[in-house]
Amino acid sequence: MDIESLVRTYRQEVYKYIDEKLPKWHSHPDIQAFYEMLRDYPSRPSKGLRATLCILTCEAFGGERSLCLTTAAALEIFQSWVLIHDDIEDDSELRRGQLVLHRKYGVPMAINAGDALHVKMWEILLENRVRLGEGKTLRVLEEFCKMVNETTEGQHLELSWVDKKRWDLTAEDYFFMCGKKTSWYTTITPLRLGAIIADANNHRLERMIPLGYKLGLAFQIRDDVLNLTAEERYGKEFAGDIYESKRTLILIEALRRCSVEEREKAKKILDKPRSLKKAEEAEWILDLIKKTGSIEYANGVAEGLAEEAIKLFEEVFKDVKNTEVKAAIRSLIDLMVSRRW
Amino acid sequence: MDIESLVRTYRQEVYKYIDEKLPKWHSHPDIQAFYEMLRDYPSRPSKGLRATLCILTCEAFGGERSLCLTTAAALEIFQSWVLIHDDIEDDSELRRGQLVLHRKYGVPMAINAGDALHVKMWEILLENRVRLGEGKTLRVLEEFCKMVNETTEGQHLELSWVDKKRWDLTAEDYFFMCGKKTSWYTTITPLRLGAIIADANNHRLERMIPLGYKLGLAFQIRDDVLNLTAEERYGKEFAGDIYESKRTLILIEALRRCSVEEREKAKKILDKPRSLKKAEEAEWILDLIKKTGSIEYANGVAEGLAEEAIKLFEEVFKDVKNTEVKAAIRSLIDLMVSRRW
Repeated sequence: MDIESLVRTYRQEVYKYIDEKLPKWHSHPDIQAFYEMLRDYPSRPSKGLRATLCILTCEAFGGERSLCLTTAAALEIFQSWVLIHDDIEDDSELRRGQLVLHRKYGVPMAINAGDALHVKMWEILLENRVRLGEGKTLRVLEEFCKMVNETTEGQHLELSWVDKKRWDLTAEDYFFMCGKKTSWYTTITPLRLGAIIADANNHRLERMIPLGYKLGLAFQIRDDVLNLTAEERYGKEFAGDIYESKRTLILIEALRRCSVEEREKAKKILDKPRSLKKAEEAEWILDLIKKTGSIEYANGVAEGLAEEAIKLFEEVFKDVKNTEVKAAIRSLIDLMVSRRW
Repeated sequence: MDIESLVRTYRQEVYKYIDEKLPKWHSHPDIQAFYEMLRDYPSRPSKGLRATLCILTCEAFGGERSLCLTTAAALEIFQSWVLIHDDIEDDSELRRGQLVLHRKYGVPMAINAGDALHVKMWEILLENRVRLGEGKTLRVLEEFCKMVNETTEGQHLELSWVDKKRWDLTAEDYFFMCGKKTSWYTTITPLRLGAIIADANNHRLERMIPLGYKLGLAFQIRDDVLNLTAEERYGKEFAGDIYESKRTLILIEALRRCSVEEREKAKKILDKPRSLKKAEEAEWILDLIKKTGSIEYANGVAEGLAEEAIKLFEEVFKDVKNTEVKAAIRSLIDLMVSRRW
């Protein structure tokens, strides 16, 4: 089976489980409407990459796929609730091809729905008891705590840079933020959870961190590129990162490469709130990015990180005997860093 | 020891523990600033009623106070993160006598800080393993899941009524919303958790629900009254509920008692967003509430509920041998429903 079909198969299984676990019916019409809000993001088309990475890693280390289903589902639920809140925090417009939740229901109800979905993540994780036993259930919960801690710290960094109109940022700053904001929940934790469920040893778990760190960075940089280049097959609004003044590696590099005058003009535009940014201003920023070759630069950095990640992958997964599963993870890594779908 | 001193003692112990558990130092100044945001609400003066109710209930059923500390701390952390988000959702101004978090740091960073504090609640609850063992730790986590589920449903009801400009509400609607929004986290869950930690049987746990339900309603109604009458010794802005168009029992009753013309005028004022409500309009609503005797009505309802709650308390705590602790809970109930501090 090719990797894209495999991801689709795993995704379907995980989302079927999520559909069963999220509340569906309530006799009170307003609470019924609330349940529909909780199901909104999880029912939108997503790739299920994190769930698949978790399950495949578990299989690679000899764990049964079914042992991982609950945990993989919780990873996807995490993605949903955090995106509801992120979309408010970033004042986004579109998510997975549809209007963001707070533009459908207003900010107050969307914040609250995110919180309700957050608790569903923990609730689902308690189901692990049946298959994994009490000790491992608690171990998985610990891992989720670490993940949310890192993600919220990374998100804080990104938001505080926008808030403080900070532009004195380097590639190092970006990697530090992005490692926390993206790598921990996209790659490090899915890898570690798969390994934990399959009883991998601590040494192996430790080594998932640098692997997942680099893989997550490469993934995020490709995502940032996609935001500025892909007008189709992409669930967010085109060039939304410019409207949201996101401190991407691309933008940091463009501001480093351009002239002093261009930099001052760019900052003035980028420091405006979204509603005051004109289309031609966003266009000007995009041209600056293109003109300075910053997209090619970012692609180059992502490729370098991906190569390092693959090298680490080969080391960490060296003893894995199931060549089929190992090859599938290798393809999944390629898919994640190419973001070709 | 009188009950107010006792609550202060217990509160101090719980908040000392929280202070130890929340992250304090980080070498990165922006993350350090983030940790200070997380400590903001927990460091403001709060009453610690929920923590005290939980600990006293544990003691009443023969559990050691120290067994309850972690869980009581998590209850207080819950209160803090949920208030950060509530204050955004309600567009409040003051909390515990100071500016709400999102007016200090902006909405995006405040939402994210709420999420980060939310995960601290679960993280702290995992510490229960050391004293309570794995099984009971998971049982406590289940109870927290139920609590957050109920609270977010109640919050959704209240927010959706404001959003849909709903005024066709009865006292029954208010009780249904408020049971979920207030009782589950203020009284039902603290009572149940104390009992769970002390190994009380299921029958006893079941009976905590109607007791906590009524006690929580009485508490919330007194809180609503306080919002309109207490200008001092109160951490929120005076008559904030009117600015926030809260569907309190008081307001529902006032709209039922007033003339058709008054009702129409009141709805027009109340359906305006906070920023468009003039001080004299809020004053007019307050006069309408006073004129119709709705505060006295609400006080009467709260008294009735408190009496029923006390009757249930006497039944559920009948076998309790520790008369001192039992008397303390009885006093705590009085304190909660009188809200005299």
